[in-house]
Amino acid sequence: MILDLILIGFGNVGQRFVSLLDEQRTTLARQYGISPRIVGIATRRHGQAFSARGVDVAKVRPKPDTTYPSPPTYSSPPYVVSGFSRTVNRNAGDTLAFLRDALRKSRVAARERRLVVVETTTLDVNRGEPAASYIRTALAAKAHVITANKGPVACAYAALRRAAARADRRWLFEGAVMDGVPVFNLVRETMPAVKILGFRGIVNSTTNFILTAMEQGHRFEDALAEMQARGIAEADASLDIDGWDAAAKTAALANVLLGARLTPAAVERQGITPEAAARAIEATSRGRRLKLVARAARQPRGVTARVSLEELAGDDPLAQIEGQQNAIILSTDLLAEIAVVQRGGGLTQTAYALLADLVTIGRAVTASAATPRRRRRARRG
Amino acid sequence: MILDLILIGFGNVGQRFVSLLDEQRTTLARQYGISPRIVGIATRRHGQAFSARGVDVAKVRPKPDTTYPSPPTYSSPPYVVSGFSRTVNRNAGDTLAFLRDALRKSRVAARERRLVVVETTTLDVNRGEPAASYIRTALAAKAHVITANKGPVACAYAALRRAAARADRRWLFEGAVMDGVPVFNLVRETMPAVKILGFRGIVNSTTNFILTAMEQGHRFEDALAEMQARGIAEADASLDIDGWDAAAKTAALANVLLGARLTPAAVERQGITPEAAARAIEATSRGRRLKLVARAARQPRGVTARVSLEELAGDDPLAQIEGQQNAIILSTDLLAEIAVVQRGGGLTQTAYALLADLVTIGRAVTASAATPRRRRRARRG
Repeated sequence: MILDLILIGFGNVGQRFVSLLDEQRTTLARQYGISPRIVGIATRRHGQAFSARGVDVAKVRPKPDTTYPSPPTYSSPPYVVSGFSRTVNRNAGDTLAFLRDALRKSRVAARERRLVVVETTTLDVNRGEPAASYIRTALAAKAHVITANKGPVACAYAALRRAAARADRRWLFEGAVMDGVPVFNLVRETMPAVKILGFRGIVNSTTNFILTAMEQGHRFEDALAEMQARGIAEADASLDIDGWDAAAKTAALANVLLGARLTPAAVERQGITPEAAARAIEATSRGRRLKLVARAARQPRGVTARVSLEELAGDDPLAQIEGQQNAIILSTDLLAEIAVVQRGGGLTQTAYALLADLVTIGRAVTASAATPRRRRRARRG
Repeated sequence: MILDLILIGFGNVGQRFVSLLDEQRTTLARQYGISPRIVGIATRRHGQAFSARGVDVAKVRPKPDTTYPSPPTYSSPPYVVSGFSRTVNRNAGDTLAFLRDALRKSRVAARERRLVVVETTTLDVNRGEPAASYIRTALAAKAHVITANKGPVACAYAALRRAAARADRRWLFEGAVMDGVPVFNLVRETMPAVKILGFRGIVNSTTNFILTAMEQGHRFEDALAEMQARGIAEADASLDIDGWDAAAKTAALANVLLGARLTPAAVERQGITPEAAARAIEATSRGRRLKLVARAARQPRGVTARVSLEELAGDDPLAQIEGQQNAIILSTDLLAEIAVVQRGGGLTQTAYALLADLVTIGRAVTASAATPRRRRRARRG
């Protein structure tokens, strides 16, 4: 089964996703019967391309990306696409027009349930736009959508979920929050009938890295510069430092797992400052750790959510989360507490989440296209 | 969709499973369209019962179960079944005869893919019998099988998996190893294309509880007695203490996740003794922890597996696993390391794992029975 992909956004995550598709081509075909084919790409800086027979994504050295001072940490060379139109998309309207055109040209694949829009544009914590519009447009045209962008999940989850249900297509977002830790799939696929009562977690790598570094006597600014150099910190560092990224993730997790209707702005929010250094060091001296903790819980009057600096006991599982690790502890009715910890998240893991979502869609399409009963019926008819 | 269940084994786990089915009846029906109905039960002590229209599983106070000195830790009253035959199954042959008869009487449900055998008999670490025979018999009669028994997975995984494939039925065992932590479902459903390179974990509650207690100065025998009183330790305590339970779980995990063909006896094995107390206390004084660690890894010449006492650094995630907690750290190619920790496992969690497996089967049956395409085709025809 050929899955046609339209990529909206082609930064580090999008490029790593494409190289992963290449690396896993044999596995995808053999184990899952899926052959992905990229038919469209829209980038902010390099233009756009569409070909119903597949865009020629040639392996060549990319132009250095000035957003990140050092190259992203994966081994295979990133891609540039030959045959890009010269028009560079300077605004969301251009991209939306490109997407509409690409969807129209792909309407046969959409009808056959094998068109997937892969959305990896940058985060907008206020409204989740223009990503939410891209997703809405794609679903309306009967494409599945996968995204690594937390904005739409944090800002417009309920509406987009309804849109997906109306379209009878999947909208998946495993990479949006936890760098590939399969938290949403875990709950959806492996915990049927379980009610999630709440969660707490460490969900922002940059602030956790800075807090850990400050405990060891490093300066706030140096630690932040290090995370930016590694391409982990958001381009606009205030998104990390002021807790906005964590608040967006908290809203996304609460919306999906707890049925909340939050936006990032509705999450009680605290960030970190250089002044936290003294508090972090002092806590360590008492065997405790200062952490930026995200938490949410079902309450009688609705879901409460907050991101704040908490001093944790040394044997708290979240106290052990170092540097770039992520962790979430789910509180449930039937399974007590389940903790999931990512040790070593990064670009490959986020890109992998997109791949996992793609396989989920491919499996569903294959299952609905050819079940044993249907085959029997088809033979008889 | 009515799922007909035949329960083989009706101890603590089986009884808690039945009460969970009752508690979750509405959720199962509304969210997953599944209505489970128990048509057969075979117990070792109380006899057996079969009714194609559903056995009357009446809520009454049970006879005290002398296997466990104190009652199991769940709230709803266990069940006894009215209408049991007077014949008590004294041996596996009786149970197998009952199962064969029940399967024959349920052959319509089996053909309709809605017959499920729920196997919860006691562990045999040497051959996984008679559980493996029950499973083979059930699959041959076109029943799905779910089990909370690690024996068959540890001793006969490859053969039973082939039997399930031949029968085109599911054999699921989420509760066999990690008390309901969805480790197998996690890998199968949420990590497509990921290769598991190895794992390490703490998988036996009794030995971990005893080690933790000994660190705090308690005696080995007292800690063991406590775990037996709580119904956590195996009736034959040597299964826990000598590392057999952990070795069986290690073999099961390695067989499923690493494609090994191990048996418990093939796992390098160490247990715990009262003499470990001094070592545990001494390690703690240096900020380290003594733990019974299960590990396995793919190696060039095959899969190696062992259970042994390891002194872990204080910041090792496994060092933080207290008392009855379970944890496993998966080492993967695409997702780096993912740790899953169960905080508060027990009877309800193991019983839940059976429920989750039942839903997995129910979902698959429903999906294959009525896909959108098939419905369209049916209307046209």
